Amino acid sequence: MLKKDLAAPRPPMGWNSWDCYGASVNEEQLLGNAAYMAEHLKAFGWEYVVCDIQWFEPTANSNDYHPFADLCMDAYSRLVPAPNRFPRGFRPISDEIHAMGLKFGIHILRGIPRQAVHRNTPILGSSRTAREIAHPYSICSWNTDMYGVDPQKDGAQAYYDSLFQLYASWGVDFVKVDDIAVTEFRPDNPYSAKEELELIRRAIDRCGREMVLSLSPGPARTQDAFHLSQNANMWRMTGDFWDHWDKLYAMFEKCEQWNPYRAAGCWPDCDMLPLGRLCKNARYAGAKDRPTNFTRAEQRTMLTLWSIFRSPLMLGGELRDNTPWDLQLITNDDVLSLNRASTENRQLLRTRSEALWTCKDAQGHTTLALFNLSDEKRTVSVELTPYGFETEYRTLDLWTKGTDRIANGVLTAEVDAHDCLLLRLD
Amino acid sequence: MLKKDLAAPRPPMGWNSWDCYGASVNEEQLLGNAAYMAEHLKAFGWEYVVCDIQWFEPTANSNDYHPFADLCMDAYSRLVPAPNRFPRGFRPISDEIHAMGLKFGIHILRGIPRQAVHRNTPILGSSRTAREIAHPYSICSWNTDMYGVDPQKDGAQAYYDSLFQLYASWGVDFVKVDDIAVTEFRPDNPYSAKEELELIRRAIDRCGREMVLSLSPGPARTQDAFHLSQNANMWRMTGDFWDHWDKLYAMFEKCEQWNPYRAAGCWPDCDMLPLGRLCKNARYAGAKDRPTNFTRAEQRTMLTLWSIFRSPLMLGGELRDNTPWDLQLITNDDVLSLNRASTENRQLLRTRSEALWTCKDAQGHTTLALFNLSDEKRTVSVELTPYGFETEYRTLDLWTKGTDRIANGVLTAEVDAHDCLLLRLD
Amino acid sequence: MLKKDLAAPRPPMGWNSWDCYGASVNEEQLLGNAAYMAEHLKAFGWEYVVCDIQWFEPTANSNDYHPFADLCMDAYSRLVPAPNRFPRGFRPISDEIHAMGLKFGIHILRGIPRQAVHRNTPILGSSRTAREIAHPYSICSWNTDMYGVDPQKDGAQAYYDSLFQLYASWGVDFVKVDDIAVTEFRPDNPYSAKEELELIRRAIDRCGREMVLSLSPGPARTQDAFHLSQNANMWRMTGDFWDHWDKLYAMFEKCEQWNPYRAAGCWPDCDMLPLGRLCKNARYAGAKDRPTNFTRAEQRTMLTLWSIFRSPLMLGGELRDNTPWDLQLITNDDVLSLNRASTENRQLLRTRSEALWTCKDAQGHTTLALFNLSDEKRTVSVELTPYGFETEYRTLDLWTKGTDRIANGVLTAEVDAHDCLLLRLD
Amino acid sequence: MLKKDLAAPRPPMGWNSWDCYGASVNEEQLLGNAAYMAEHLKAFGWEYVVCDIQWFEPTANSNDYHPFADLCMDAYSRLVPAPNRFPRGFRPISDEIHAMGLKFGIHILRGIPRQAVHRNTPILGSSRTAREIAHPYSICSWNTDMYGVDPQKDGAQAYYDSLFQLYASWGVDFVKVDDIAVTEFRPDNPYSAKEELELIRRAIDRCGREMVLSLSPGPARTQDAFHLSQNANMWRMTGDFWDHWDKLYAMFEKCEQWNPYRAAGCWPDCDMLPLGRLCKNARYAGAKDRPTNFTRAEQRTMLTLWSIFRSPLMLGGELRDNTPWDLQLITNDDVLSLNRASTENRQLLRTRSEALWTCKDAQGHTTLALFNLSDEKRTVSVELTPYGFETEYRTLDLWTKGTDRIANGVLTAEVDAHDCLLLRLD
Repeated sequence: MLKKDLAAPRPPMGWNSWDCYGASVNEEQLLGNAAYMAEHLKAFGWEYVVCDIQWFEPTANSNDYHPFADLCMDAYSRLVPAPNRFPRGFRPISDEIHAMGLKFGIHILRGIPRQAVHRNTPILGSSRTAREIAHPYSICSWNTDMYGVDPQKDGAQAYYDSLFQLYASWGVDFVKVDDIAVTEFRPDNPYSAKEELELIRRAIDRCGREMVLSLSPGPARTQDAFHLSQNANMWRMTGDFWDHWDKLYAMFEKCEQWNPYRAAGCWPDCDMLPLGRLCKNARYAGAKDRPTNFTRAEQRTMLTLWSIFRSPLMLGGELRDNTPWDLQLITNDDVLSLNRASTENRQLLRTRSEALWTCKDAQGHTTLALFNLSDEKRTVSVELTPYGFETEYRTLDLWTKGTDRIANGVLTAEVDAHDCLLLRLD
Repeated sequence: MLKKDLAAPRPPMGWNSWDCYGASVNEEQLLGNAAYMAEHLKAFGWEYVVCDIQWFEPTANSNDYHPFADLCMDAYSRLVPAPNRFPRGFRPISDEIHAMGLKFGIHILRGIPRQAVHRNTPILGSSRTAREIAHPYSICSWNTDMYGVDPQKDGAQAYYDSLFQLYASWGVDFVKVDDIAVTEFRPDNPYSAKEELELIRRAIDRCGREMVLSLSPGPARTQDAFHLSQNANMWRMTGDFWDHWDKLYAMFEKCEQWNPYRAAGCWPDCDMLPLGRLCKNARYAGAKDRPTNFTRAEQRTMLTLWSIFRSPLMLGGELRDNTPWDLQLITNDDVLSLNRASTENRQLLRTRSEALWTCKDAQGHTTLALFNLSDEKRTVSVELTPYGFETEYRTLDLWTKGTDRIANGVLTAEVDAHDCLLLRLD
Repeated sequence: MLKKDLAAPRPPMGWNSWDCYGASVNEEQLLGNAAYMAEHLKAFGWEYVVCDIQWFEPTANSNDYHPFADLCMDAYSRLVPAPNRFPRGFRPISDEIHAMGLKFGIHILRGIPRQAVHRNTPILGSSRTAREIAHPYSICSWNTDMYGVDPQKDGAQAYYDSLFQLYASWGVDFVKVDDIAVTEFRPDNPYSAKEELELIRRAIDRCGREMVLSLSPGPARTQDAFHLSQNANMWRMTGDFWDHWDKLYAMFEKCEQWNPYRAAGCWPDCDMLPLGRLCKNARYAGAKDRPTNFTRAEQRTMLTLWSIFRSPLMLGGELRDNTPWDLQLITNDDVLSLNRASTENRQLLRTRSEALWTCKDAQGHTTLALFNLSDEKRTVSVELTPYGFETEYRTLDLWTKGTDRIANGVLTAEVDAHDCLLLRLD
Repeated sequence: MLKKDLAAPRPPMGWNSWDCYGASVNEEQLLGNAAYMAEHLKAFGWEYVVCDIQWFEPTANSNDYHPFADLCMDAYSRLVPAPNRFPRGFRPISDEIHAMGLKFGIHILRGIPRQAVHRNTPILGSSRTAREIAHPYSICSWNTDMYGVDPQKDGAQAYYDSLFQLYASWGVDFVKVDDIAVTEFRPDNPYSAKEELELIRRAIDRCGREMVLSLSPGPARTQDAFHLSQNANMWRMTGDFWDHWDKLYAMFEKCEQWNPYRAAGCWPDCDMLPLGRLCKNARYAGAKDRPTNFTRAEQRTMLTLWSIFRSPLMLGGELRDNTPWDLQLITNDDVLSLNRASTENRQLLRTRSEALWTCKDAQGHTTLALFNLSDEKRTVSVELTPYGFETEYRTLDLWTKGTDRIANGVLTAEVDAHDCLLLRLD
């Protein structure tokens, strides 16, 4: 176990501003969601409040990026919070969040601002300038703010060191770095920013403050898992996840592939939970300020998979708009405790129409999750004995709290379309 | 743990005829190597004697394949041993090997003989014929003997069932199936024989005899690891391995990538050990009947990696030609016991010039393998504390039996080019 | 101009059995269509009667191929007509067709029968056998009859020489060779049969009879055009063409790309004309024994493009089922004369919704074809002066025989969806 | 023939500064080479003097590009000549070149300066700004000066119109546009700047001055030939050409593929002629200020191929350093007249070791070029009759002026390695 793993001994749980506020979140929204979390969610393990992309852009007003927008930057080529959105900067926000017993996270983009490069501004702690450390062809394929940093250049490490010193001074506990787990500027090498990641790792280790390092976007590749595990705490297994069944369905294959790579401090990431009220300031998936598209069955299936796989859990909706149903869904301690502390998590079976996972909970009880991946309600029946199970069990469903029995080594149940059972066995 | 895993609770160890006899091994050579193994190697865990490809071809006389050669086949489209090479068939060979306390393995190619298809011969246990179950476009890209079997066809399972019934009747304990972990006829899908593998799995499960299922060639893909683990006991991570440093060097990356997928009964395979006297009947790598190209340092490095990674171990040389040095190399019980029984095996570090692996041996001692991957003798120095180690240890080198100390949390040693240390820590 | 070009001084015109009889055409159908051609079409230049694939398979009964079907073969590994379908063989058919003033063509597949290889039958004029000249991995990806021939092997040329001697003895005037302009067994090299084509070219040159050499399937690549031109008389620019607008639409881009490569004796081929009554013995595109799906406008557009591009013209429907409208369409001498003898053919303009082609007819009149490629009737207007035209012309529509004027250098006309104008300018 | 074709009725001939001065040519060098051309070369058709890349960069001093270098720009986002290198600007240079009876050309990079975009400077003739018309992800992969222009944006055409108005005011006759025939930022679409090319075409047509439009770099694709022919006067068939035999050897295949696409005003381009004294200010191919690496035989072969293929001819060496041998090579009027005015140019034959081309010269004499592509002097013998030649000719070698005979339809000659014959037949 590496020292960096201590920052995330269990999968991080929290809230991220992207799904509801896109590129335009502000102080009131951050603190409002933090207060809700402190009051309703903290007891269940939820703790991070993460401000997503473009907090340095005064003109951000939706999910959209504005090509070549003017960004707020300090004298050392470092982006700083836009005063119209964060008039006090991040330190007071961080202090208030900490005072609530929670933790504070921010999003950054790999690299150095293009505007710094073209203005040729200084780097703190180095005689080199922005122009001298930028990689002129390493650009993000969906956002114009940055050039990548060339890790071979003198001054490159100093730049990243200066960034994380600043974030440490703000009280940041969690950094989501984007355009790094997959880059697109070299199509034959999606992991081309590997050495830039090492600069970031080193900068965090030196900054004097423990921070969780989260990498985006996906899909990260299993062939890079060792390097990811050595340098980051969590990384995305897919492109952006939203509330569509096909994306949830596809996550099962990803969890199958990445399951052996999970370890304390190293969490393959299923991405955010688009639950509750979404898209407050812009359209995504057809509508503005809308509830999740997921059915209740699908919401259970998502939380079950994310929990038994032990993915990080990041809520995406505006928490203050939660209905009672929304709230109970994310405060089921039996389910969440699997995410926090289960072991021996693994898939036993996956076909086009069903999947079966198992783990042991913190008390050593075997748990089974049976998913109906088909589009119809049906009776799902799985023989358990080939997997080394006994033939008789009493079962407790962690969602419904209903009890039942498994007999003759066969788990049989009627399951709704896209729904699941999550059973503790005795 | 699946039932099929019981066939290989530890990585299989043995000898395979390919590296010294290519496609032309005969009874005398099989039994001669078996006798050597029984006398000199059995006590260290070596147990399988495997007859590689083309045992059904009377004209085989070297490493080369003969396009469209006539093959020995029974009345049910099943290949049988060539009488000029195996006059008594396989059953007496198997009996003698078993009597020595060893186990018997054979190689097969996925599919049904092309000659069966063009003669349209019967399938045992089915009214279908060879022509009706063959997949007409699924051919091996390097051997002309077979067509793949179309898993959708009635009769396909019956054919494979009939094969493994025959092998069970021969007393076969280990089957190496070729042209299956990677196929080349559909370049966009190297795992196109996935469903044919399921037929084979089922046929073994039904045949009434426990058999290890080994898949070739590689490189298998990590994205297919779950399916491989569900169906086979070992599978190749690379193309054919031979005694060249570049292939050994490249194996480190493969071991890094596949390490999380290893489990009891599920062994990612580094391929055969080209040690001792090789190529008795044909040229490979420039010469016929030649010693291994590997230096002694490289031989140690190979055995160390294969052991701490827990790869299957299959000797490739003519055992009866072993020198005393060759013999001591493969009978170092301290080293082999790591292969047989260590836990928590994993890589800690890999750069272009060095690699560091660790595991716990069966007694719970931490073990470290430090590899000098560079082409020069040099002092290698690695800080251990970032990986959670203590600062002081006594060390025992499992190769030299020399003792030493680690101080201040740093492992420092002078290591020859391509050589390694394998240290038990106290 | 090479000698082989004399076999096809103008684009070949004729009828081919595939679109109506698939793999199962018989003597009566060949001769019946020949008789129709002699009576109704010959005067307009139609002359070839081509028997398509599987004439050597007794069991052929539709469009489908039968994997591993037994084929009729002579003592020298050469396929011969199936007696149940061609009881007299091809020579009497050829004689009757020649007596009608027409020409006779056949289809073959590149290679040597797999059944010859597995039976190891002789090659005429060589001491080598089928097994010795076959390329064991060069198979067609959609038909199981043949292995490719390995051009490096002694006996390979002798085999092809023997084939074309046989075809010459049958009185064959046209050979459509399949699985050759595009092969699929080496996906990185679709023109992998290039040297096999050279064997075929040489065999024709030596056989003592002039034959048109037509290559299938497509898409041939423009980068191979020189080699194609040196060896064949026509070659396909696309995969199989059928009566769907998307395929006709896509042909415009192919004609644009291949236009510079056309020369006397070297004809890029738009493929067969699916006109009249199709699919007499099997379903294609949803129905058996059905009229063409093309609208009358689309049929005009197809014939106009094929003519102004000077593609070979091969009718696909059962000619004896032609309606009067069908017949007049393919006997418009003004249109067909462009195919037979125009010059300076080229595209002037192509957008998503329209295309403009021009040529000079045999009398030196400038001709314009204006195509409405959009799905709606609309007024199409094109400025002609940028292309060096005059501003005033009288026009004669070669389809409607209507006359009109072009004024002010602009061609303006209302054109139906998918329809065209074909105008002779004065 | 389109109006734009009138700018280049024959392949352009001239001199370009790249091969000797890289990115750093200055006024003295341009005018010095112009004076040499006027005195020694003009009579043979040489006429263009082209200033290559980076004339707007004050710091340019070799072949190297300087990432993010500050560029000279006018108030409308247009790059202008660097005063330290061109103190009077381009107009006086152009005037002097015109006064010599020659023509003036410049190089530009597709797009708008990145510095204009980040400063957000105005566009002449539009209310839009640089930032609003730039395509933020369309960057050149080897030079940091520009962003591509987004053709969909209002202001994009105005920008290019303003550029060519400026160039017209400078008296520019020839524009070499770079990063356009092949772009690399979208690897699946190397012709992604197709619509930007249309903007440039329109801007030239509107600017009131005839200019040759030359496109770089290559390899352009034959599938795009129609669009290239509609919009440009010449385009590169390969990447940068330099004085290495492998590049010259490879050009034969390109000439074979592109030959049918040549037309008056539309010239596939073999690229510059690296002859005489090269690399005056920087190393390329191992040395600074060096003579061409090509042997004299290779120089003849290059000029022969470029001439019989009718490629544009652009000299690359410092003309004032020419030796008498260098000068006679590029003033052989018999050879150059083929470039200027021959017809029916085409390859007859190409193997690994030889190529044969033919054309008719302006007087209608058949000409043959026979190339020995092998690395050894040898007797090359080609049968001419298959290509429709007579059996007897008298021959005049256009390089040596020697006379000889062709007898029995066979051209036989001893040719040095990499050398050629260029024969006028009578």
